[in-house]
Amino acid sequence: MAKKLTDINDFGAVNLLDRITVAAEVTQPSTVKGIGDDAAVTDAPAQQHVTATALQLEGVHFDLTYTPLKHLGYKAVVAAINKIYAMNVTPAQIIVSAGLSKRFAVEHVDELFDGITIACKRYAVDIVGISLSSSLTGLALSITATGAAPKEKIVYRNGGKPTDLLCLTGNLGAAYMGLQLLKREKTVFEGNSHAQPQLEGYNYILERYLKPEAQKEVISLLDENHIVPTAMINLSEGLASETLHLCKQSGCGVRIYLERVPIAADTFKIADEMNLDAVVAALHGGDDYELLFTLPVTLHETITRELQGIDVIGHLTDVSEGAYLITPDNQAIALKAQGWNDDSQ
Amino acid sequence: MAKKLTDINDFGAVNLLDRITVAAEVTQPSTVKGIGDDAAVTDAPAQQHVTATALQLEGVHFDLTYTPLKHLGYKAVVAAINKIYAMNVTPAQIIVSAGLSKRFAVEHVDELFDGITIACKRYAVDIVGISLSSSLTGLALSITATGAAPKEKIVYRNGGKPTDLLCLTGNLGAAYMGLQLLKREKTVFEGNSHAQPQLEGYNYILERYLKPEAQKEVISLLDENHIVPTAMINLSEGLASETLHLCKQSGCGVRIYLERVPIAADTFKIADEMNLDAVVAALHGGDDYELLFTLPVTLHETITRELQGIDVIGHLTDVSEGAYLITPDNQAIALKAQGWNDDSQ
Repeated sequence: MAKKLTDINDFGAVNLLDRITVAAEVTQPSTVKGIGDDAAVTDAPAQQHVTATALQLEGVHFDLTYTPLKHLGYKAVVAAINKIYAMNVTPAQIIVSAGLSKRFAVEHVDELFDGITIACKRYAVDIVGISLSSSLTGLALSITATGAAPKEKIVYRNGGKPTDLLCLTGNLGAAYMGLQLLKREKTVFEGNSHAQPQLEGYNYILERYLKPEAQKEVISLLDENHIVPTAMINLSEGLASETLHLCKQSGCGVRIYLERVPIAADTFKIADEMNLDAVVAALHGGDDYELLFTLPVTLHETITRELQGIDVIGHLTDVSEGAYLITPDNQAIALKAQGWNDDSQ
Repeated sequence: MAKKLTDINDFGAVNLLDRITVAAEVTQPSTVKGIGDDAAVTDAPAQQHVTATALQLEGVHFDLTYTPLKHLGYKAVVAAINKIYAMNVTPAQIIVSAGLSKRFAVEHVDELFDGITIACKRYAVDIVGISLSSSLTGLALSITATGAAPKEKIVYRNGGKPTDLLCLTGNLGAAYMGLQLLKREKTVFEGNSHAQPQLEGYNYILERYLKPEAQKEVISLLDENHIVPTAMINLSEGLASETLHLCKQSGCGVRIYLERVPIAADTFKIADEMNLDAVVAALHGGDDYELLFTLPVTLHETITRELQGIDVIGHLTDVSEGAYLITPDNQAIALKAQGWNDDSQ
């Protein structure tokens, strides 16, 4: 028998908030006031403050038929804090606002906040604000992340120079392929509700979609090596559009060498099975939460020696040379953005 | 003939963002980096930073059949920045995230951001981030506001002491009555689409609902008089539930004297017409965006003399004395919260 769920309206918003708040410890020295007031208060003397919001809407950014609420909570935190890492800053606080439709029970909210709390522990981030409201049409989740750093450590999109190396964390397209697989299984299920999802052997791409990680380690690694990128951007959309954002703001052109764009073996394998193009997934797929950044060409040896897991995939050029993807047979294809959403802060 | 509207998807998110960004000047010295990066950067040396988010969802927080988009934009800014004023801090920046469903055209987005921009000019706030995405089901609008102030100026909900005077800006219940009037006209219109809305003579309550103002002047007035409240809270829900929040956090009881609760003559008049209770509107109505704060009883004369427009509506007591509303005939009615939404930060 299914466990009886607790109606949110019977339970009350204040009780629900109290229930969630229990798990929200304050661990960051910069957190002055967390949950429970009109605003959160943070303090970091002699530092600049960095703030970004990620708004996630049901049906657009996630589909609850194949995204467990716990994963959604975790992922929403990653989406927000990765914008702070993309400034070369370590996030310290988040504020969560959720709009909940009637089909959510108290236990569902618990699951969502379990995921949020796990992500906060993993990334040493305090929850300093929670606001709950009802929603007519589905789940809306807004997460605002903040952090602080000395002025000279903060990295913008606009500092790239011609000849700078274009560097990338991790590999691309895996989350996109994970999403395609989940969509396929949903379609099968809708055709035959007795069908069991065929997800075995696809762990890597599924995890990349359902439980992405933010780039904490890379930011620490750069810091340990006293390296401050000239420009940096969060890869929430595909490589193509984010590279174009960085180039536009830095006033540069770019050459990306296709054979250097890292794509996981699993991504190629599943793309083949599903008759999809792994390269298209890497260029336009999105949801990667990797970081794209530029470093002076003089650091080339240091990158190879010290920055494990970072790939140099190309370099910036003079703006007059345009933005191109160079194929292995030396064809130059103009870089183009796809998709509608824009994720500038 | 109706003017042809521009489809958002044809226009593209990047173009739409550029179009909106033009109006977003940087005027605040604390704004280091505004729109166009992964996060906003602010700087206010030797100050603490205050951050709050207000998430507004179509059908729950607003109804576009009677809320013009321009007013919605203005009001959403007020809802967010009033949380910063409620910390006794002047807001300086906002970040806007909007989810737009297919029925919104470029011109609609212009109207929304017109309202946002007008509010930002009125309150001297910079727009430091804009993020646009699609939405399956309606308009979702998340506004994050930030500000900074010296530590000793920031006012929390938890500093109230027994005998402190309970002070209120403005008057209550007008916005709620404005909403009831708009709902009534909507119902009439749905019954007969040739009906013209009967809104004449109701300007005051309509404006209180459609174009509320944030409490900038009161915060300046307190500052000019070197007064720092002991506790303060934003009245986004009704007086009853917000008073209970303040009391709970301050560990106090409270007595509110009903005849001292300011209700506008127009609010009483329309309540009579519509067979509604103006006092219930004041206690539980919400959307007032007034501030409730406490001051030591020793300041009573100063309040009367210097703080124009501030009413003393009661006082805090020892927690053992409970939370009561005292009627003119000296009956004590236990204060109770109503409604579902919770708006602690």
